[in-house]
Amino acid sequence: MNDFPTFLADVRPAIEDSLDRLLPKATAPPARLHEALRYSTFAGGKRVRPALVVLAGETLGARRERLLPGGAALEMIHTYSLIHDDLPSLDDDDLRRGRPTAHRRYDEATAILAGDSLLTLGLTILATHPAAAPPEQRRRAVEMTGAAIGTLGMIGGQVDDLAAENDWPEDAAAALDAIHRRKTGALLTACLRLGGIYADVDEERDGVLTALGVRIGMMFQIADDILDVEGTDGTLGKTAGKDAAARKLTYPGLHGLDESKRMLARTRDEALELAGVLPSGGGLLPSFVHYLSRRDH
Amino acid sequence: MNDFPTFLADVRPAIEDSLDRLLPKATAPPARLHEALRYSTFAGGKRVRPALVVLAGETLGARRERLLPGGAALEMIHTYSLIHDDLPSLDDDDLRRGRPTAHRRYDEATAILAGDSLLTLGLTILATHPAAAPPEQRRRAVEMTGAAIGTLGMIGGQVDDLAAENDWPEDAAAALDAIHRRKTGALLTACLRLGGIYADVDEERDGVLTALGVRIGMMFQIADDILDVEGTDGTLGKTAGKDAAARKLTYPGLHGLDESKRMLARTRDEALELAGVLPSGGGLLPSFVHYLSRRDH
Repeated sequence: MNDFPTFLADVRPAIEDSLDRLLPKATAPPARLHEALRYSTFAGGKRVRPALVVLAGETLGARRERLLPGGAALEMIHTYSLIHDDLPSLDDDDLRRGRPTAHRRYDEATAILAGDSLLTLGLTILATHPAAAPPEQRRRAVEMTGAAIGTLGMIGGQVDDLAAENDWPEDAAAALDAIHRRKTGALLTACLRLGGIYADVDEERDGVLTALGVRIGMMFQIADDILDVEGTDGTLGKTAGKDAAARKLTYPGLHGLDESKRMLARTRDEALELAGVLPSGGGLLPSFVHYLSRRDH
Repeated sequence: MNDFPTFLADVRPAIEDSLDRLLPKATAPPARLHEALRYSTFAGGKRVRPALVVLAGETLGARRERLLPGGAALEMIHTYSLIHDDLPSLDDDDLRRGRPTAHRRYDEATAILAGDSLLTLGLTILATHPAAAPPEQRRRAVEMTGAAIGTLGMIGGQVDDLAAENDWPEDAAAALDAIHRRKTGALLTACLRLGGIYADVDEERDGVLTALGVRIGMMFQIADDILDVEGTDGTLGKTAGKDAAARKLTYPGLHGLDESKRMLARTRDEALELAGVLPSGGGLLPSFVHYLSRRDH
């Protein structure tokens, strides 16, 4: 196995299995709510985040079965953020990966509560799994993730992104970076760092993972913005050109398409350098970085 | 100090201080979001939940400064649940304690994200405070609370409560108990059990705290339903008679006012018996139970 797509295909069944075992059964009451959790979690996502937890953790010496529950927890937290972001009062999206969003498939109340449930469940899983890990490790997992997704992290990025829709901030380029470092980057960084926590890395290595995560988050967002310009509804599974229509602050909107592609390449090179510092040259992490920079899948 | 109201008045400044220190400053960006967290948290609540954490913990031998952060965390989680329950697609409330609800004062997106933030922060505080406590204790705090407020606990109760509005379930009396055991009772029970965790109680004592919490939750809800019938907008700080108008499943609506009062008295007696089993006859817990049974404040 020498590239990320092969690794992803290999690890994905175990991730799906982990999610299936950790989510409440759809038949258990409250059944409609539990069904909604599963509807949104099993919506055809590529499972990049849990794969990153496993990839980082394995590269740093942890065993796969120790990494899977934490990976599933971060995928649930990612799903919560998508459900809430799609709500009418936020991004107001009807489609996600080609299917009706949670509030369209169910109703708004169910979508709000399903998001709340996934957030609660995700953090609780981090505190309780793996049962054999030292309590200190599980405590650090909650602490690190809680900070990454809170008001100074993911939620803060979403708030500023919504605010920027109405009123572009003065230094738009800095604001755009700051928004996405938190909105997209904070959770991706948490994936790498969580792998590190389960592998008991020291502070210095945690710092490398953080710096790498920031670059990966940026690449993710720039690639996503480019796709929104160049893609079609079919390749996106959502409404194409929506960002431009909403006058959203985006990389191509602000820097142009060509410069955005150059920024993507520069960030890729920084990420490759950081990954190279890790044991075994970062394992498949460089391949993941290349995968991101060619993102049209 | 020999009654609960005196205890509450005594401990409340420390609770307010704890909340103030643990919440992000309103001036720190994202300022509007942080302001919303504080607007909803400092809305004149009586702080019954954190007081219960302190009361249970002190009765069982823990020191107050160890109990305050956890108490503040559960108050934040309580506040998150109120903000989301008040949303237009859920209970659609404009007033809470005589002031505009979060989505009326700010906007719906901010209210949703403020609730998400308080939930995230509450669970993170449980994982990180008190810093001097054994990691295992903090891990248990997150695990117990996460279960109490998840789909089988508080959120599940809210889902069933919303469903019962449209369509009263077949066995309405059993459904009413089941809804409120989770919607109101689960978090109140978590307050008692959290005090127990910080006092390192054994399983048997945790069982007593759980049984007591269930009764306290029921008393809370029955008293609240009675108040909705007998109170006025002024005494309630919210719209009186709203439950009846919404055809909500309530104790007086289902059992009549007199029988509801008898149920309240019976539950009080059960709660007093359980509190009496704890060290020093439960300290001020019996006084708290009496306080609840005369709830017109």
